[in-house]
Amino acid sequence: MNRYKCTISYDGTGFSGYQVQPNKRTVQSQIENVLAKIHKGGHVKIAASGRTDAGVHAKGQVIHFESPLSLPVEKWELALNSMLPEDISVLLVEKADSSFHARFDASGKEYRYFLYQSAKRDPFQRNYAFHYPYPLDLAAMREACTYLLGTHDFSSFCSARTEVEDKVRTIETIEILQDEEHLCFRFVGNGFLYNMVRILVGTLVEVGAGKRRPEEIVEILQKRDRRYAGKTAPGQGLYLWKVFYENKKVNNSS
Amino acid sequence: MNRYKCTISYDGTGFSGYQVQPNKRTVQSQIENVLAKIHKGGHVKIAASGRTDAGVHAKGQVIHFESPLSLPVEKWELALNSMLPEDISVLLVEKADSSFHARFDASGKEYRYFLYQSAKRDPFQRNYAFHYPYPLDLAAMREACTYLLGTHDFSSFCSARTEVEDKVRTIETIEILQDEEHLCFRFVGNGFLYNMVRILVGTLVEVGAGKRRPEEIVEILQKRDRRYAGKTAPGQGLYLWKVFYENKKVNNSS
Repeated sequence: MNRYKCTISYDGTGFSGYQVQPNKRTVQSQIENVLAKIHKGGHVKIAASGRTDAGVHAKGQVIHFESPLSLPVEKWELALNSMLPEDISVLLVEKADSSFHARFDASGKEYRYFLYQSAKRDPFQRNYAFHYPYPLDLAAMREACTYLLGTHDFSSFCSARTEVEDKVRTIETIEILQDEEHLCFRFVGNGFLYNMVRILVGTLVEVGAGKRRPEEIVEILQKRDRRYAGKTAPGQGLYLWKVFYENKKVNNSS
Repeated sequence: MNRYKCTISYDGTGFSGYQVQPNKRTVQSQIENVLAKIHKGGHVKIAASGRTDAGVHAKGQVIHFESPLSLPVEKWELALNSMLPEDISVLLVEKADSSFHARFDASGKEYRYFLYQSAKRDPFQRNYAFHYPYPLDLAAMREACTYLLGTHDFSSFCSARTEVEDKVRTIETIEILQDEEHLCFRFVGNGFLYNMVRILVGTLVEVGAGKRRPEEIVEILQKRDRRYAGKTAPGQGLYLWKVFYENKKVNNSS
């Protein structure tokens, strides 16, 4: 068997999230359907670095799969892209070690969250950013970010439905970048809990709006209770930007 | 009666074009439905500066309508935007002269056409730009543009289904702007025939690809026959950018 690592991008608008669900259009089912055709009906299961929710986008999601077919990676790219719907694109296929796992080997992730502030809503951004047409105190938000950096128990910043036991994660970088009408929140860390980025953004927006003091972040973290953090920001502003693999386990030469 | 001029923006992806058609979702029908609700069921017909085709976008389409209701323009904006679907936005409402007509008073228009050249297709651009992943000779394209400037019979550059008799139009400006992976074609003129911008772009791309010499534009214009021009570029790259209503020339030089 050959194991392949694929870096993919998708516009989450038309999907009920990443993961297969009965009678729903999902990213996983679209890719598995195409792989089944390539394998003449044989089911090929794919594994991703993690799920994304309905409406959430990916610029650099990573999946892996196994195949008895041994094709050059360029052929895989062409075959997959020619058969996949236009809202999914395969950016890169690499031959991987037989032990490589898209989820278990991921050493970190980058997410970005886009918010736009124009007074009137913009039809072209409705599926790609969160419309927030009120002033935000950027300095206060950036101060709040400093309390989130590092290793913390993020129980307050994940969905109450989160199933994992260990809610300690490390955030290495939080940046808030600004252009004319956008804010881009950039998060890099070793892992993110369910809804964590959206709840972090929702809470930071409440700080920016003056509804919370920056230092409140410290208390919220200490409470380890979802009810103390802010609202979950809408999914369409969120992008899984990049997945990091320290131990590469890929062969770039074939 | 009060006459209102509205500047609107729409993402053309989800519409079967601007104009009302039976059982189709169109921009005009969505706006007229909302106006009917505001007028308690009374039909209010809107008139636009011109139609746009399926998938074609607008950043600054202009419409007008008449109403017995006399509301401040800000109230009209709020009422319309709160009731319209998210893929249409009213940018500005102005009270207009009773003689104002969105189509007949238009003195010029600006269209922009976006093309992207990245090697891999990009899911986020599939509905918003034309994917053309091959090299283009920008200097040749710009030379071709010089032959299109000014007043010409554009019969070769409009759909054979065009109904208007007079196919003489004046193009004041054609610019081709380039960033990392996009080309933006900017056209300003006193009027554009059916499919004219898309056929102009399709022909310019054939020049850029080396399939035609820039000087061929002169012959194509002389033929006055659609069959001599290039292919019609796809609709999703096209944006009705601005409509001009000055009793001046469109370049504002009175």
